[in-house]
Amino acid sequence: MNRSDLALPIKENFFRKHILTMDQFDRLSIERLFVIATAQLENFLGHRASNHLVGKAVNLYFREPSTRTLLSFQRATTQLGGAIQIDFGAEHSSDAKGESFDDGLVMRGLYADTIVFRHHDPNAIYLAAAALAQAGLETRLINAGNGGDEHPTQALLDLFTIRRRRLPLGGLKIALIGDLKAGRTIHSLLRALACYDNVEVTLVEVPGLELPVEFGQTLPTLEFRQTTFEEALASNQVWYFTRTQKERAEVGCQVGSDFRLTREVAEKHAGPKTLIMHPLPRVGEIDPAVDAMPQTTYLWDQPVSGVAVRMALLSLINGE
Amino acid sequence: MNRSDLALPIKENFFRKHILTMDQFDRLSIERLFVIATAQLENFLGHRASNHLVGKAVNLYFREPSTRTLLSFQRATTQLGGAIQIDFGAEHSSDAKGESFDDGLVMRGLYADTIVFRHHDPNAIYLAAAALAQAGLETRLINAGNGGDEHPTQALLDLFTIRRRRLPLGGLKIALIGDLKAGRTIHSLLRALACYDNVEVTLVEVPGLELPVEFGQTLPTLEFRQTTFEEALASNQVWYFTRTQKERAEVGCQVGSDFRLTREVAEKHAGPKTLIMHPLPRVGEIDPAVDAMPQTTYLWDQPVSGVAVRMALLSLINGE
Amino acid sequence: MNRSDLALPIKENFFRKHILTMDQFDRLSIERLFVIATAQLENFLGHRASNHLVGKAVNLYFREPSTRTLLSFQRATTQLGGAIQIDFGAEHSSDAKGESFDDGLVMRGLYADTIVFRHHDPNAIYLAAAALAQAGLETRLINAGNGGDEHPTQALLDLFTIRRRRLPLGGLKIALIGDLKAGRTIHSLLRALACYDNVEVTLVEVPGLELPVEFGQTLPTLEFRQTTFEEALASNQVWYFTRTQKERAEVGCQVGSDFRLTREVAEKHAGPKTLIMHPLPRVGEIDPAVDAMPQTTYLWDQPVSGVAVRMALLSLINGE
Repeated sequence: MNRSDLALPIKENFFRKHILTMDQFDRLSIERLFVIATAQLENFLGHRASNHLVGKAVNLYFREPSTRTLLSFQRATTQLGGAIQIDFGAEHSSDAKGESFDDGLVMRGLYADTIVFRHHDPNAIYLAAAALAQAGLETRLINAGNGGDEHPTQALLDLFTIRRRRLPLGGLKIALIGDLKAGRTIHSLLRALACYDNVEVTLVEVPGLELPVEFGQTLPTLEFRQTTFEEALASNQVWYFTRTQKERAEVGCQVGSDFRLTREVAEKHAGPKTLIMHPLPRVGEIDPAVDAMPQTTYLWDQPVSGVAVRMALLSLINGE
Repeated sequence: MNRSDLALPIKENFFRKHILTMDQFDRLSIERLFVIATAQLENFLGHRASNHLVGKAVNLYFREPSTRTLLSFQRATTQLGGAIQIDFGAEHSSDAKGESFDDGLVMRGLYADTIVFRHHDPNAIYLAAAALAQAGLETRLINAGNGGDEHPTQALLDLFTIRRRRLPLGGLKIALIGDLKAGRTIHSLLRALACYDNVEVTLVEVPGLELPVEFGQTLPTLEFRQTTFEEALASNQVWYFTRTQKERAEVGCQVGSDFRLTREVAEKHAGPKTLIMHPLPRVGEIDPAVDAMPQTTYLWDQPVSGVAVRMALLSLINGE
Repeated sequence: MNRSDLALPIKENFFRKHILTMDQFDRLSIERLFVIATAQLENFLGHRASNHLVGKAVNLYFREPSTRTLLSFQRATTQLGGAIQIDFGAEHSSDAKGESFDDGLVMRGLYADTIVFRHHDPNAIYLAAAALAQAGLETRLINAGNGGDEHPTQALLDLFTIRRRRLPLGGLKIALIGDLKAGRTIHSLLRALACYDNVEVTLVEVPGLELPVEFGQTLPTLEFRQTTFEEALASNQVWYFTRTQKERAEVGCQVGSDFRLTREVAEKHAGPKTLIMHPLPRVGEIDPAVDAMPQTTYLWDQPVSGVAVRMALLSLINGE
């Protein structure tokens, strides 16, 4: 079973579709999601519980560390009235008795309606989707990070954040700064931005951690530029920083130092409509002195958007 | 306090009884359970939440790895409106500060109405029941696997699966194949089958892992036979496979190789009403090529029966 | 930001206040809490769920082992209709990727309305409160044990237990027995008792683990005495035992042996209105043979009071 049979285009219909890659989305599906996410954001901030997922369960299958993704999916699930199924990791499950990946996945699929799935192996989520299909199960997967490949719900919350800050996505000028090689957030974000017209992407790359060349070929609607750190800040509305993914760096690999945004540099280049974004965690890319600037989105807007977007996804694929 | 004071006969009344061993059951209690389980199965598959356990909590006290049992009890609890209490294991609890088993158990009993209990020591659940009685608590225990001894909820879901597939339990012909020495599933299943008339049990034993001789003596209603692997398949309606319990094998113990069901052999012997069962996890006993045969129950019927039977048990002992 | 800006006096108004230290409480706030706790105790024991926390979430941020505190906060939360957010510890969160304490805390605050916080570093909860304030979040912290400093919800449940047993708190005569140096329970309990008039405190100290001298100075309403173990039992209504906090003892420190209450000694000195208390876990301070005496509170009254008091706190700070 190949990827295109599993990662179906969404168009306007999310019901019972896996969310595996941003390639499934087009502008229509993103905009449909944002309509629901806008309503769910109000519910979340107003502490209004709903019952979209009452009688349903969401399995959190995380094989890599997580804070934001894990907690926001928990909150999204319970806010919708659903139950969480906790997976305590390989050593506490029948994986420890030699159970196959497929059998273990099918079991989780039998006991949950949705599996939120994070794994260091980029291919594991596709194997998981194939195992569910083979077993005839309707349980749906949401990719919460597959190795260095993709993290589509992060890209969706990033775009939703930009939209909430009233920047038009068409014609957006965005600088991507940091590890563009293994940053799965970046890879999904580029695919998401490619759904809009005339987006200009400025790459500020850490030497040795450049964006894989195929992105320029597979996303022809994007216009790529490269420049220096400060020139990128001066010429873009959105500054999108990422952490060097040390856990994915090749052993012995020497990479250039990360870029670091200080308050001084931030104030020098930021206009009133600039957005300073980061998927977090940060490990030095943005100085805490920057946090109080109103242009920042990483400490409030993005993580809160994450709950709203994930509530919208969970309710849509489970059949709002 | 001896076992017979703790493991009371159920007859038709589950309310506030521990579920420690299949010895507590007779045909009446099993049939009563199946009536409720049949209704709960519809609720689960139809995503209908109920409120039998609203305002109540279930503690998951697991000291051995688990996938199916842990997740299906979670789903059963939340589907009934109850809350899960997560026990994070000895190292994260006051066990790490030197708290006694009894004190720790009583505390869990104070904060939960039911404790689902899995432990490598076969006697631990009886000690737990005695500790609760000593403290005057009405919290009830459900045995989710006590070492190599018993796993009664697995036996109940196995029988419920056979019933759902419209095989009569009276007069059943069943082959038990694999580790019959340490397979707690097998031990509970035999006790459950002994509640029905004229059941014929064919043992296909791994050399060195034979069924303990006392089963023949204590379960006189069962008729035991021994034969070869393929003869057993040819002459039984139900083929029940189990995994070698490597975690319970004596160190240095040499055991014969497990039996392995291939598609070829399965098709040679299976009739339209044959059931191919396995409690899972499997580690090679049944080839995945067999999975698509309609006679199999291990990838869907058994795990789904598990939710229904556990919903029924939880609602009955908490007072439906 | 200093501690007094974070640990605001409660007086009668708990709404949106952190619970960091017993210093925030006076008699009025304690009595207000007990009114609510009395009602919540009935709800808990009667299995009546309420909806005070529906649409809200409580994060359990525990960086030290816990049984009672963790489980009773879980039960309190779900009994009020709230959702639990499980924090799986540093190694499974972005702490493992180098995220700062502040960033990690703010994220947990975005996804939860209350954070129940236990940490080996006594200052961590104040840093946490400052980080939330800095980020402009209204999420509130409850101190569930900050190193050897305080454990205010334990002190509140202890006082509530004494009240339920119909001993007047004003004029109480209480013996504190054991590790008074690192016993955070003791430190909070003394602050709580200081809110009432004419309380006499008899210290029975393990040599080397004496109560820090500042307590005598900062709590002038308390009258302190020192005496021997048996004289303390003979002359006090409440016997409050604590465990030696071995995890907080200095390396190589030699401390005297703990005191141990046997049934014989207990019967010799206990009157009908004596209370034998212990926050648990115990590691030998009270012989299990004492448990059946009606004067004991540690196996039922205190842990059950814990659910009631924590339900009251959670409902009050979230705005009953």
